[in-house]
Amino acid sequence: MSEAQLPEHRPGTEPGSRTNLDPHVERYAARTAGMTASEIRALFAVASRPEVVSLAGGMPNLAALPLESLSQQMSELIAEDGLTALQYGSAHGVPALREQICDVMAMEGITGHPDDIVVTVGSQMALDMVTRLFCDPGDVVIAEGPSYVGALGSFAAYQAEVVHVAMDDDGLVPENLRAALAQCEKAGKRVKLLYTIPNFHNPAGVTLAVDRRAEILEICRQYDVLVVEDNPYGLLGFDGQTYPALRSMDPDNVVYLGSFSKTFASGLRVGWVLAPHAVREKLVLASESATLCPPTLNQLVVSKYLATHDWKGQIKTFRENYRERRDAMIGALEQYMPEGCSWTHPDGGFYVWLTVPEGVDAKAMLARAVTARVAYASGTGFYADGLGSRQMRLSYCYPTPERIREGVRRLAGVLESEMDLMRTFGSVTTRAVSGPQTPGPETA
Amino acid sequence: MSEAQLPEHRPGTEPGSRTNLDPHVERYAARTAGMTASEIRALFAVASRPEVVSLAGGMPNLAALPLESLSQQMSELIAEDGLTALQYGSAHGVPALREQICDVMAMEGITGHPDDIVVTVGSQMALDMVTRLFCDPGDVVIAEGPSYVGALGSFAAYQAEVVHVAMDDDGLVPENLRAALAQCEKAGKRVKLLYTIPNFHNPAGVTLAVDRRAEILEICRQYDVLVVEDNPYGLLGFDGQTYPALRSMDPDNVVYLGSFSKTFASGLRVGWVLAPHAVREKLVLASESATLCPPTLNQLVVSKYLATHDWKGQIKTFRENYRERRDAMIGALEQYMPEGCSWTHPDGGFYVWLTVPEGVDAKAMLARAVTARVAYASGTGFYADGLGSRQMRLSYCYPTPERIREGVRRLAGVLESEMDLMRTFGSVTTRAVSGPQTPGPETA
Repeated sequence: MSEAQLPEHRPGTEPGSRTNLDPHVERYAARTAGMTASEIRALFAVASRPEVVSLAGGMPNLAALPLESLSQQMSELIAEDGLTALQYGSAHGVPALREQICDVMAMEGITGHPDDIVVTVGSQMALDMVTRLFCDPGDVVIAEGPSYVGALGSFAAYQAEVVHVAMDDDGLVPENLRAALAQCEKAGKRVKLLYTIPNFHNPAGVTLAVDRRAEILEICRQYDVLVVEDNPYGLLGFDGQTYPALRSMDPDNVVYLGSFSKTFASGLRVGWVLAPHAVREKLVLASESATLCPPTLNQLVVSKYLATHDWKGQIKTFRENYRERRDAMIGALEQYMPEGCSWTHPDGGFYVWLTVPEGVDAKAMLARAVTARVAYASGTGFYADGLGSRQMRLSYCYPTPERIREGVRRLAGVLESEMDLMRTFGSVTTRAVSGPQTPGPETA
Repeated sequence: MSEAQLPEHRPGTEPGSRTNLDPHVERYAARTAGMTASEIRALFAVASRPEVVSLAGGMPNLAALPLESLSQQMSELIAEDGLTALQYGSAHGVPALREQICDVMAMEGITGHPDDIVVTVGSQMALDMVTRLFCDPGDVVIAEGPSYVGALGSFAAYQAEVVHVAMDDDGLVPENLRAALAQCEKAGKRVKLLYTIPNFHNPAGVTLAVDRRAEILEICRQYDVLVVEDNPYGLLGFDGQTYPALRSMDPDNVVYLGSFSKTFASGLRVGWVLAPHAVREKLVLASESATLCPPTLNQLVVSKYLATHDWKGQIKTFRENYRERRDAMIGALEQYMPEGCSWTHPDGGFYVWLTVPEGVDAKAMLARAVTARVAYASGTGFYADGLGSRQMRLSYCYPTPERIREGVRRLAGVLESEMDLMRTFGSVTTRAVSGPQTPGPETA
């Protein structure tokens, strides 16, 4: 986390503190009621100090990028094709890039047509557009529990109701999905989407078992629910393993979201949707009303990079960096964590999901952790229904292995103190559960 | 208009032709009913041919940009600051850029705090976010008639109702505004926003008289309506003239939208909102759920450009180019247009608003115009209520003066034929009025 990651505040103005003085308070749309800042933001002044080890962020580690040749390419791009790069494009996206995206998706078994791709401003925008297209207020989105905080933010913005389905170490549990859908049906709820991150889940760190995939698709077909497959980490399996995309198994009922944020550069904000043709047509119209078009420059930068760099080799380098960090985190958890804690064992991606002993409130503990110079993303942010108070997401993507080990050591110390207090006085804190928090890039 | 501006279609698939076959048709949210493609898109295959003079687009003419030094800067930026430029940032925007934006706005009399600015993916996103924040379905937005097609697209996406207020040569007419607000009040409608483009209006080409500004702000105060001031063209007055921004006269009740698309480069998609502090806080949260953050690279490119280039000199160059083109268009209209046509006389910006003789349907005529190798944006797209069938927007921003003159000559020929037919057979076509069309960059 760095200063660039969170908005600064004027001295003396805490987020929310002006709410009562806001002269516009009667004017907001109903949907703004769901917009609240994450608790890490409130701790920003402290949490952003360099001495704090942040295990809260989702920033990719870009140090391995070939900056020198990227610099050269950028220069060529403007000199040779500047009037295109700096001009409006279409909301659909640059045709050459859409063709290259097909090659990227082919690595996970997807056969798609470039025409059925819409380029978006990161896959966050893709998520927002898909929700815009399908969700009326009160419509249900089924999501894993926990789920990506940014998705919960988009669903809240469209006043969709999120129903979580629990996972196990093999990801989404088909029986749980079936039960949730049956219950919604019984309650007369209109379920529109299953939102799922099958590979190296954010925040859970688990992967959907291959032998569950067909079953999950079949259940969605049966209940007439469209599948939204969000796959930013699919190429970051630590052994180079990939899994068949849900999209590859049911092209007509899956909307697939992809991103270059984790495999190339997040600051370019280039993501995409691959959708059934009729849906794609509507997505283009929705995107036009949202941003007119994604930045042309950024699309050409990605396109040129894919055309001229060994991008698969670069992904391998990223994977190796993240594997080393994952190892550091898992090793440190094993070494330092007190009894009663458990955690997931990711084979790829950025995150470990940690469960703390009963009685510890991970959200309430965050302020104390930051004082002890370690930050994490508390679990409640990843649920729309108030669950997650005993969980936290630890990300190993950005800090060095040494810092990761030190961060986990500090966190273990905070937990030990918390548990000591608990043993002495009973439960340390009682806090009301709370709904989803609006995502920030720090929790992406 | 070029191939990059509009999505291609697969051979044999016309837009909308698959609607009846769309298996997802029952799944869409109610808001998608308002999403329809513009008619120019349907004519794309023909209209994009190089022999067609397009007076339909809103693409700035970038030929005067200093590509060589931009190329050099881009290269330095990546080499020196690549790990920041390629990394996530905050939804609030890069602090240095927000400070520079204050200098830009100062040119129109605005005193703002950098903290109250939110950087967006073009001002289209700013518009979308403001609507997201304030408009529940059925809420009313007052807008000039005609109004920017992209704004109508955003309002439709949030199911807001647009009530148009007529302009004259001095822009929005205060009495008309007052009457519309009184009528809405009487009808029990909840008016949330006045959306206005005070300077060098898109599409009308007129400017709000300075002596009307205070009155309009006062009326909005009286009816408790927030003002959204959209000002992409304010620095493009052909004599270098600027007008006091509404924001400068009532900071607490105006949300101001700015953009670098017309004063620097549209393909970077860098715009901003300046909002009252409490609104700004909510805008950041809304933006996070929409795109996480605007592209860092693009913000740094703009920031570096503003810091090192003579950006005011560059704007002067742009202004001179556009003035030459405006002169070409006005001259050609005077020379070629048949009796019964009238048009506005812009002192800045990109557009002339043309009214054709009674009985001519500008929308129905478009296909014939394209066949005669000239394209325009027909007027109905700029109204949410079906008006505008006798109007069209002619843009002089992109083609050369020679092409503009030739385009107007062709258009006059089409109109002459149309009027000939009309004189012979009565009204040429009778077409149902239609609602707003979704914007594309070609009509931005």
